[in-house]
Amino acid sequence: MIAPAITLLTDFGTADGYVAEMKGVLTTLAPGIPLLDLTHDVPAQDVAFARLTVARYWRRFPVGTVHLVVVDPGVGTSREAIAVCSEGRYLVGPDNGVLSPALFALDARVVSLTVDVQASPTFHARDVFAPAAAQLARGVSIDMIGEPFTQPVRLRTAQPRRAPDGALHGEILTIDRFGNAITNLAARDGAAVQVGGHQVRVVRTYGEAAPGELVALVGSSGFVEIAVRDGHAAARLRLSRGQAVELAPVMR
Amino acid sequence: MIAPAITLLTDFGTADGYVAEMKGVLTTLAPGIPLLDLTHDVPAQDVAFARLTVARYWRRFPVGTVHLVVVDPGVGTSREAIAVCSEGRYLVGPDNGVLSPALFALDARVVSLTVDVQASPTFHARDVFAPAAAQLARGVSIDMIGEPFTQPVRLRTAQPRRAPDGALHGEILTIDRFGNAITNLAARDGAAVQVGGHQVRVVRTYGEAAPGELVALVGSSGFVEIAVRDGHAAARLRLSRGQAVELAPVMR
Amino acid sequence: MIAPAITLLTDFGTADGYVAEMKGVLTTLAPGIPLLDLTHDVPAQDVAFARLTVARYWRRFPVGTVHLVVVDPGVGTSREAIAVCSEGRYLVGPDNGVLSPALFALDARVVSLTVDVQASPTFHARDVFAPAAAQLARGVSIDMIGEPFTQPVRLRTAQPRRAPDGALHGEILTIDRFGNAITNLAARDGAAVQVGGHQVRVVRTYGEAAPGELVALVGSSGFVEIAVRDGHAAARLRLSRGQAVELAPVMR
Repeated sequence: MIAPAITLLTDFGTADGYVAEMKGVLTTLAPGIPLLDLTHDVPAQDVAFARLTVARYWRRFPVGTVHLVVVDPGVGTSREAIAVCSEGRYLVGPDNGVLSPALFALDARVVSLTVDVQASPTFHARDVFAPAAAQLARGVSIDMIGEPFTQPVRLRTAQPRRAPDGALHGEILTIDRFGNAITNLAARDGAAVQVGGHQVRVVRTYGEAAPGELVALVGSSGFVEIAVRDGHAAARLRLSRGQAVELAPVMR
Repeated sequence: MIAPAITLLTDFGTADGYVAEMKGVLTTLAPGIPLLDLTHDVPAQDVAFARLTVARYWRRFPVGTVHLVVVDPGVGTSREAIAVCSEGRYLVGPDNGVLSPALFALDARVVSLTVDVQASPTFHARDVFAPAAAQLARGVSIDMIGEPFTQPVRLRTAQPRRAPDGALHGEILTIDRFGNAITNLAARDGAAVQVGGHQVRVVRTYGEAAPGELVALVGSSGFVEIAVRDGHAAARLRLSRGQAVELAPVMR
Repeated sequence: MIAPAITLLTDFGTADGYVAEMKGVLTTLAPGIPLLDLTHDVPAQDVAFARLTVARYWRRFPVGTVHLVVVDPGVGTSREAIAVCSEGRYLVGPDNGVLSPALFALDARVVSLTVDVQASPTFHARDVFAPAAAQLARGVSIDMIGEPFTQPVRLRTAQPRRAPDGALHGEILTIDRFGNAITNLAARDGAAVQVGGHQVRVVRTYGEAAPGELVALVGSSGFVEIAVRDGHAAARLRLSRGQAVELAPVMR
């Protein structure tokens, strides 16, 4: 099966030409297969950030898609290079947890890629991951490109905990470009969110908020977000990743 | 007719993964149709800026192209989601004026899209606009994907006015990455531009300017621009959007 | 021969819509040929930076690829617009040295493009370079799109010089997104690098460095880089482009 697309996520930016080199390799080794940039603007070496981004998209692409994911502060160290097949999609990248969202599926299979002696020890994206992605995209079996690998690094999103009074205690996972603070609170039934000394009411849509109003609502990936309608919540409240949030239960 | 391409303009940036999710939906629902990133770097929620960008490109693509345009501060409020067919191209996005450049054509047809109850109230790009764009790209009739809609928001570019002495009074519409200030003065016959107390001579090409010289010239979309050869006009003169400019008539 | 892809490098950013206009022209004139963004984030008008980026990628793409390269501070002046065929790849852009990496091949052929009187004097990317790239991509002979041109601007990377004591004296060519300072020292046999009063030991991989350690190593394009494992060397040492570096010889 030929892949419908190869997607690219990196923290390389584009100006330096590293992504260009990867695309040269992919165009050469997997001719005719569309390349889709997802992002090259992940904060440099921020594996935790990239993991959340991967979680958003990896399963939204058709079966057979190959996701190249390179945020790789450990390049040239002993960390493994891996490829994953999970729910019919392929992912290729470093074994540092960035591929975790695809590693919890029951059918996930992982191989460790052979690193050729010719590979640049600073640029596995070009010399190891892109060639592997090209092979998978052309239909080469994952078993042909590496050795079975059973202990990949699996990072889990921090889980909120339920307090005796019924409140959910969680944290801010990330802050998006609009200043929305995305939490790990998946509950849909809260009455109000507490964050940094502020009490924020829960609404269902921005339509229920006044312009400039601070609100909490369930965002597009199912987690509670703290937002300001037509504004930037993180700047207004000085929110940051990892900050504690609390969802008060609805009184019944 | 299958679309030659689906283009994407958003203000999402790419790092957070929202664009990636949209591309997953598009690749799934419109397989084989090329996706072309136009920009994801529109300033957040800046509908006016995005409208000018759309004006530049929407008609330069072949007939049948689908332009997905999402700068949508009103997502989840009562604003409509629309699709437009204009001069053979399709545009899909929120009804907030961002699609205006295509709405003044005589043949422009607009439909309001149905918003499924399952759609995330914070992410119509993924759940409403991308699916609609995919349908149009696959050749589904625009009449099949929404209800006729006759009152879309149409924003016009501010028009300059002619003073009794013959001078044209206009304003700076936008400042580009190079620091060029693009005005709404379309006249090609001015002798000099006044801006912020500075008098700027009009030239036809950068070749007529000395390195570092401040000049005005007709830019690539037919409007007068204030520029510095090999420099950054906006920084040098502290120019800003909306600032008044004046084009003095040629003495005859 | 139909090109496998048209690649794009510019310093335009994407928000203003200039790249979008180029893509409209390319999609119209070269239908069905994939467009690959390499970067639009080259620092504005930085020909030297772009030249290094082009050097990284131009030869990694398959024969027949068309590379559109537009960093063009001289647009609208007397500089020529050129197309190059070199080692089977095509490059199109301004004659300011940005295409130099492809001009030193023995088989390099260059033509100067005709600039139509209708072309915007500020936007040759849209009106001159993109149409030429589209023609080459569709298989039109390079001889059909311009006149032979024998004196293109050829910029060379500064060469290091060998001191009497055996040390190599070079300079920092560029600093990448990760803060790595890439030098023009191609030697693989040094013992230590001197930069800004700091002595930096040479290692083969990041695996040999402690987290946070300052090291020098041969990077992915064969030049010595100064780096900090899990850190930002340029910020730590206040490194800048053009700064002197010295590679001490191994004692034997």
